[in-house]
Amino acid sequence: MNKDQYIASIRKLNLKVYLFGELIENPVDHPMIRPSLNSVAMTYELAEQEEHKDLMTATSHLTGKTVNRFCHLHQSTEDLVKKVKMQRLLGQKTASCFQRCVGMDAFNAIFSTTFEIDAKCGTEYHKRFTEYMKFVQENDLTVDGAMTDPKGDRSLAPSKQEDPDMYLHIVEERADGIVVRGAKAHQTGALNSHEHLIMPTQAMKEEDKAYAVSFAVPSDAEGVFMIYGRQSCDTRKMEEGADIDVGNSEFGGHEALVIFEDVFVPWNRVFLCKEWEFAGMMVERFAGYHRQSYGGCKTGVGDVLIGAAALAADYNGAAKANHIKDKLIEMTHLNETLYACGIACSAEGCKTKAGNYQIDNLLANVCKQNVTRFPYEIARLAEDIAGGIMVTMPSEADYRDKKVGPFVKKYLKGVAGVGTANRMRVLRLIENLTLGTAAVGYRTESMHGAGSPQAQRIMIARQSNLELKKLLAKKIAKVNESENK
Amino acid sequence: MNKDQYIASIRKLNLKVYLFGELIENPVDHPMIRPSLNSVAMTYELAEQEEHKDLMTATSHLTGKTVNRFCHLHQSTEDLVKKVKMQRLLGQKTASCFQRCVGMDAFNAIFSTTFEIDAKCGTEYHKRFTEYMKFVQENDLTVDGAMTDPKGDRSLAPSKQEDPDMYLHIVEERADGIVVRGAKAHQTGALNSHEHLIMPTQAMKEEDKAYAVSFAVPSDAEGVFMIYGRQSCDTRKMEEGADIDVGNSEFGGHEALVIFEDVFVPWNRVFLCKEWEFAGMMVERFAGYHRQSYGGCKTGVGDVLIGAAALAADYNGAAKANHIKDKLIEMTHLNETLYACGIACSAEGCKTKAGNYQIDNLLANVCKQNVTRFPYEIARLAEDIAGGIMVTMPSEADYRDKKVGPFVKKYLKGVAGVGTANRMRVLRLIENLTLGTAAVGYRTESMHGAGSPQAQRIMIARQSNLELKKLLAKKIAKVNESENK
Amino acid sequence: MNKDQYIASIRKLNLKVYLFGELIENPVDHPMIRPSLNSVAMTYELAEQEEHKDLMTATSHLTGKTVNRFCHLHQSTEDLVKKVKMQRLLGQKTASCFQRCVGMDAFNAIFSTTFEIDAKCGTEYHKRFTEYMKFVQENDLTVDGAMTDPKGDRSLAPSKQEDPDMYLHIVEERADGIVVRGAKAHQTGALNSHEHLIMPTQAMKEEDKAYAVSFAVPSDAEGVFMIYGRQSCDTRKMEEGADIDVGNSEFGGHEALVIFEDVFVPWNRVFLCKEWEFAGMMVERFAGYHRQSYGGCKTGVGDVLIGAAALAADYNGAAKANHIKDKLIEMTHLNETLYACGIACSAEGCKTKAGNYQIDNLLANVCKQNVTRFPYEIARLAEDIAGGIMVTMPSEADYRDKKVGPFVKKYLKGVAGVGTANRMRVLRLIENLTLGTAAVGYRTESMHGAGSPQAQRIMIARQSNLELKKLLAKKIAKVNESENK
Amino acid sequence: MNKDQYIASIRKLNLKVYLFGELIENPVDHPMIRPSLNSVAMTYELAEQEEHKDLMTATSHLTGKTVNRFCHLHQSTEDLVKKVKMQRLLGQKTASCFQRCVGMDAFNAIFSTTFEIDAKCGTEYHKRFTEYMKFVQENDLTVDGAMTDPKGDRSLAPSKQEDPDMYLHIVEERADGIVVRGAKAHQTGALNSHEHLIMPTQAMKEEDKAYAVSFAVPSDAEGVFMIYGRQSCDTRKMEEGADIDVGNSEFGGHEALVIFEDVFVPWNRVFLCKEWEFAGMMVERFAGYHRQSYGGCKTGVGDVLIGAAALAADYNGAAKANHIKDKLIEMTHLNETLYACGIACSAEGCKTKAGNYQIDNLLANVCKQNVTRFPYEIARLAEDIAGGIMVTMPSEADYRDKKVGPFVKKYLKGVAGVGTANRMRVLRLIENLTLGTAAVGYRTESMHGAGSPQAQRIMIARQSNLELKKLLAKKIAKVNESENK
Repeated sequence: MNKDQYIASIRKLNLKVYLFGELIENPVDHPMIRPSLNSVAMTYELAEQEEHKDLMTATSHLTGKTVNRFCHLHQSTEDLVKKVKMQRLLGQKTASCFQRCVGMDAFNAIFSTTFEIDAKCGTEYHKRFTEYMKFVQENDLTVDGAMTDPKGDRSLAPSKQEDPDMYLHIVEERADGIVVRGAKAHQTGALNSHEHLIMPTQAMKEEDKAYAVSFAVPSDAEGVFMIYGRQSCDTRKMEEGADIDVGNSEFGGHEALVIFEDVFVPWNRVFLCKEWEFAGMMVERFAGYHRQSYGGCKTGVGDVLIGAAALAADYNGAAKANHIKDKLIEMTHLNETLYACGIACSAEGCKTKAGNYQIDNLLANVCKQNVTRFPYEIARLAEDIAGGIMVTMPSEADYRDKKVGPFVKKYLKGVAGVGTANRMRVLRLIENLTLGTAAVGYRTESMHGAGSPQAQRIMIARQSNLELKKLLAKKIAKVNESENK
Repeated sequence: MNKDQYIASIRKLNLKVYLFGELIENPVDHPMIRPSLNSVAMTYELAEQEEHKDLMTATSHLTGKTVNRFCHLHQSTEDLVKKVKMQRLLGQKTASCFQRCVGMDAFNAIFSTTFEIDAKCGTEYHKRFTEYMKFVQENDLTVDGAMTDPKGDRSLAPSKQEDPDMYLHIVEERADGIVVRGAKAHQTGALNSHEHLIMPTQAMKEEDKAYAVSFAVPSDAEGVFMIYGRQSCDTRKMEEGADIDVGNSEFGGHEALVIFEDVFVPWNRVFLCKEWEFAGMMVERFAGYHRQSYGGCKTGVGDVLIGAAALAADYNGAAKANHIKDKLIEMTHLNETLYACGIACSAEGCKTKAGNYQIDNLLANVCKQNVTRFPYEIARLAEDIAGGIMVTMPSEADYRDKKVGPFVKKYLKGVAGVGTANRMRVLRLIENLTLGTAAVGYRTESMHGAGSPQAQRIMIARQSNLELKKLLAKKIAKVNESENK
Repeated sequence: MNKDQYIASIRKLNLKVYLFGELIENPVDHPMIRPSLNSVAMTYELAEQEEHKDLMTATSHLTGKTVNRFCHLHQSTEDLVKKVKMQRLLGQKTASCFQRCVGMDAFNAIFSTTFEIDAKCGTEYHKRFTEYMKFVQENDLTVDGAMTDPKGDRSLAPSKQEDPDMYLHIVEERADGIVVRGAKAHQTGALNSHEHLIMPTQAMKEEDKAYAVSFAVPSDAEGVFMIYGRQSCDTRKMEEGADIDVGNSEFGGHEALVIFEDVFVPWNRVFLCKEWEFAGMMVERFAGYHRQSYGGCKTGVGDVLIGAAALAADYNGAAKANHIKDKLIEMTHLNETLYACGIACSAEGCKTKAGNYQIDNLLANVCKQNVTRFPYEIARLAEDIAGGIMVTMPSEADYRDKKVGPFVKKYLKGVAGVGTANRMRVLRLIENLTLGTAAVGYRTESMHGAGSPQAQRIMIARQSNLELKKLLAKKIAKVNESENK
Repeated sequence: MNKDQYIASIRKLNLKVYLFGELIENPVDHPMIRPSLNSVAMTYELAEQEEHKDLMTATSHLTGKTVNRFCHLHQSTEDLVKKVKMQRLLGQKTASCFQRCVGMDAFNAIFSTTFEIDAKCGTEYHKRFTEYMKFVQENDLTVDGAMTDPKGDRSLAPSKQEDPDMYLHIVEERADGIVVRGAKAHQTGALNSHEHLIMPTQAMKEEDKAYAVSFAVPSDAEGVFMIYGRQSCDTRKMEEGADIDVGNSEFGGHEALVIFEDVFVPWNRVFLCKEWEFAGMMVERFAGYHRQSYGGCKTGVGDVLIGAAALAADYNGAAKANHIKDKLIEMTHLNETLYACGIACSAEGCKTKAGNYQIDNLLANVCKQNVTRFPYEIARLAEDIAGGIMVTMPSEADYRDKKVGPFVKKYLKGVAGVGTANRMRVLRLIENLTLGTAAVGYRTESMHGAGSPQAQRIMIARQSNLELKKLLAKKIAKVNESENK
């Protein structure tokens, strides 16, 4: 699909979306939602451009055809590296979350996990899922890979919650399929997706087996509806003639609460059904891929923020100050450290039993752990360079007003040769990325997306091979058993 | 004045305020502005409460009467310490910038600087200013201590700017007073102030002497007008029935661009007029007091944020997780470090030649430098504890809607016994402090208020007494001159 | 006592000290031990100097006489502040641990704790201890305040250890006193002390009551002996003509393992005997004072290290590089933050029931927690500025050698006008503080002295008043009970 | 060569080495020097082991023969990645600097630089160097790649120094070769090398062209001699029966000052002679490779330190404490971040004009910049976990003494089942890595090796492509030229 076809295809869907208590007739053209669609559309647009084809497309091992890399099952570590580079590119082009990664990461996780379930349990999930992948690739779909449940009381297991629906679960098994109920929270790009591809949210015990479920449904399936999440500064997009104050008027991201009210799923779209002992594997694999992803997308957004901070310094006449130069270096250093982690976990990837490639799990968790820290420091430094005017600046309406506008123009001028409007644009972009709608993606999603910091620490602990390290130390220190007696 | 009298007194002013390109008829009752007035009003309200009188009031050394501490000239290090404690208290009560400190800090800086100008130059600024202070104390005024000019191209001196008005300056000296033109940016609480008390923005050279000017004018003086600054999420306050989504529906802060279009100032309100060699002293003293201030107010706001994060953990059922407890400890540790710096620079204060007390300047700069760092880390940790739902949560309108509301209520429920609305309230408060209107005060103002980080570093360098430290090292290392031959 | 009298008084003691497996005949003149004695001697020497009397001495409230402040029971917050300033001064003069603080901190902790024990239990510990304090003050003694037990298996309580002696305990109660066995580890300045003043190492339960014991014995009491602890680079002090390579040839610190082999203590020197419920109070108070102390002594040592780094930059010809200047600013900023915490917990101190003053416990713990971090970063920056030559430099013997010396002199020369030997001296001082004998004090003792980092975190948690903070947040967020139904 | 042959080959050299002012007859068997030889020997030993052949050896593209990877010219990004893995392995096996990397990195830098010099200048350096490489590979030599000059006054260029020898330079050009004078400082492994391979220390201007010189000489060439650098705790290796107290009794590193007193170099060993405009390229390439190296070796040493800290916690009975587990996770996280950077700059490498592969220079600088920070934090955390006993522990002689030994054994016991000696061994290993001889490699060399932190920042700035980032930001913010008018 090209960009326009994609937008048309979403427009055709019969989505049920609530926003500010109202059912939105036409989400595609809603001013608050549209920028997020534009970001996804960029994944189609760039795939059409010759210079980006190497990164944006791949050859399907299922069909031999060229597919958008977002629909690809990685066939090599080179594929994994290209994925990260594609994500950085898209971050640079949209300065926001372009949403389509969750699908790609779900594809690869479910593909290899279903293979291993089948091998162990004699099920046929992998065959079903392979068919599903052909359908996705053929139609170049955007798919919402959905994992996170609302979770209610975090200290209780799914089956121990007061309300059994706090984790999505199977409420009925029928001859032709299953019926599910529950919700998935924080669903990135849910409104811009053709499909929801559901996974469990954590490892399960036997008592929670009704919660061990994976499946796909069209995003406008019967019983599915979405409630749009508020973002900081979201309504600026709805202000008349919104342009400067929005910071990034063309692109954005969104999250939604997706609710499943007794949704029917036919068997050929069910990929996990009560094999609770594999829930953990699916979660871990998806999380691994998604933790890698952040080494790409967030560095792309970081590039834009670094560029914006450098422009702000130029426009302030402060670019030659040593401390400014040093802060830009630090921002770059941190951003490239994230990128290095994204590249490293890809280059060190390995083949799964199913044949696709997965990342080095330890390094992917290390990557994400850094993502929970460095964007915050990059943002802090950007705010330092931008100056206080970023948050005390009069509105665009003041700037455009006949009476008061000239004063805004006069007193907000920076260096000669740069219009006040342009200075305002850059400052509003920094505001957008550090406090506004895009801060949701650049800061909070960096923190919690693909799992909160503690989740990575647990994985790092598990894979740190501490026993080997102890042996190395014992050897060097000449620790010996005889001295223990 | 009590709280109501204060509000009435502001209402009586004939302020010229622009917001979104429009002249605001009644700023006092404007939903976007009012919360900031409420914060200032709290400085009057608490002064009436018996339990807070010790912190909130003081005895004027000019009149012997009890005055609000915000109008006080500090008479001891104990006064300086109480100032910080008062600020922490107000931060706790408003979770925002309560704005009145800039006046207090300007009073104390101008009081001692004018004394020294007079001693050197035979002027009578100190006498004038003392009279002005009596007027302020008598009427319990809120005064906007105004320092920061727009500054245009930061690489050029005031007199070298393309537009001579980029720094506020004297355009005419008359028999009865002076006429000034220019603007002051980022003016905290400008709309809630009875007076603007102007200071120069930096040390000056002789060629810039027209820019070395300090004076006071009523905030509704002829030729003065203000343009209200946009904040992240500012319009949420204007949403119908704004309550939960605002995060902090009662209190707030604001900044404005205050423009002086050929404003006349009578001589008895002029406190510095071209004595350029004292501009630096006035700036440094104001900055010193204001850097101390942040060790109080920001720790108060920090207390609320720590409390909110702890509540969020309770409501998530995560309060017993070790990593959560540890993050709350870290937040507390950082917050108390800021407080310790505020207390220390106060306890180590000393008497000026004019008789009032000033802070230890090195420690006040150290205090502020930490304030440019720790609130960001405290905010990051709060976002970690809150969870992603803080930024993906449906709107209050969804929650209150008959159709979709029950689903919000159901799926956003945390632990048993806590209503979803209350969970949303706490999450929105954290959003308010980390991304929303209050983040402007808690993060960006922490960064740039009272001078950007580099300004403090320059002061730290100047006061670090590096030569003494080198001597100490030479003595220990037994560096000796004879070995240099 | 003056410095010489002090040294003579230590020489007179019949100490049993082991070092490298040998009983040391004359610890006072042992080249490895003597520098640590010199550091303690400085506490006597400075007290004789007019310019330092205000800090170094105080008026005893017990006798009305002037006493060395190290023997003083603090009578005001001013005393607490002066204590910190005295410690900074001594850190500047010795660039090492001057050891005498442990006694001072023990005096103040035991004084107030015994008062409260007596009030509750009808004992007479406070009276005994007051007599003891008179004896200490009268004779201007240096006293080893000893707390830390070897502790064996940290996961087991004192009474549950395989070896009952892993915590010092009472083995016999007699008519005339008690007999104790065990050891105290890491005893700072043990060899330079006239007395050991013992406290329990942690809060106790009833089953551990034999371990709840506090008492004083002369340091050469029957059954007491010490094993000297190794420090990094310790034997450089024994190298022939040790001068440059030692880094700090005159001053140092030491720690020792002090062993009590069935030592008898007469009742008049017993200050806690099985009142297990007060062990925690005594520990907490001592730790509080000692955590304050580090805000003084370590900043003094930090001053020397900053000075040495600045000198190294001068001698390298790098002093004008912006990054060097910025690193010196950062070192200063961190060092002064520590000092601010030391001052703040003192200024916010309060009177105990016994009448002496104790520090603000929350802020003292915050102070120490920062001490476990910032000296490491200051040291890292010093190593950055010093350059690699600090650790690859030829020895002093090479420098002094006729054949190879001229090459060392030639090739290790920095800027013109500074002798190579002086450059070497400064680099060796930095090495001493970051890697050598003084690093034990500046780094590891900063980490573990007065309790390891986690001990402070527990105290910070306990005193953070999280419930109040939650209330503040609830009020602002308008959390209300009615919405919980 | 195998390990023994290597040692024999070094023994055969006629090295002139000074230590403590004396010419060392037999450096190979000197107790202070030998451990560093053992570390280099490990590069030969592992190459003989089947399981390590893939990492330790490669196929020479010059001869088609199998060579030790340390003598290899990288032929692919895979080679670059294997280099890093080989270094991590050696770091794990020696817990110290194994010294041979400097040669490998010099080979690859000079190989490609000489190719480009020849192409531009018509010289024949590349041919000569290729012959030299065959000789190195054939004989499996350890070569000291030598770059850093003493540099005298850092603010002056080489030709402006008071003493012209502060940078190594050509003093005579003869028909058969050149004569050079000067010194190279901090030469890692100089005493364990068969050859010195010299490069200039920085980019040069024309006036400094006599300093633009690269060549190779045998390490026992006429006129070459070395002065051994002191390390922290170096003489512990000379203590009788040195075992426990040394921390790492078998392995170590060393640095030496290598002096060239009018050394003759025949033309066939000269690889750069006054082509000053290529000095910068050679430096930058060597530095790039060497900054990559640290992503390998230091993570290997880090593995040992993490293991040692984990063992210390086990032996203390503290392994189950949450804060201990969390600190081990943090250490692992930081260590793996370094590794990720090493891997990433390798995987993203590219082919030089000469045909060998070089690293991604931006990422290699980012790698090294992190190496100047994280090992310090890892060391700090290790010291936290180890406990204060690490630096207050009695000596090995005390432990072995008949009288006092039993008390050491008793009171330094940790958990049941672990001998006190083993606990001491592990603590001494941590001391060795954080304060002792190995701290020179793990801390200071991490800081300054391959260039001090500021050198990397300059490279990061140069390669950050800030202009592209500004364009990205302009596009997103819709900055437009028309608004600049």
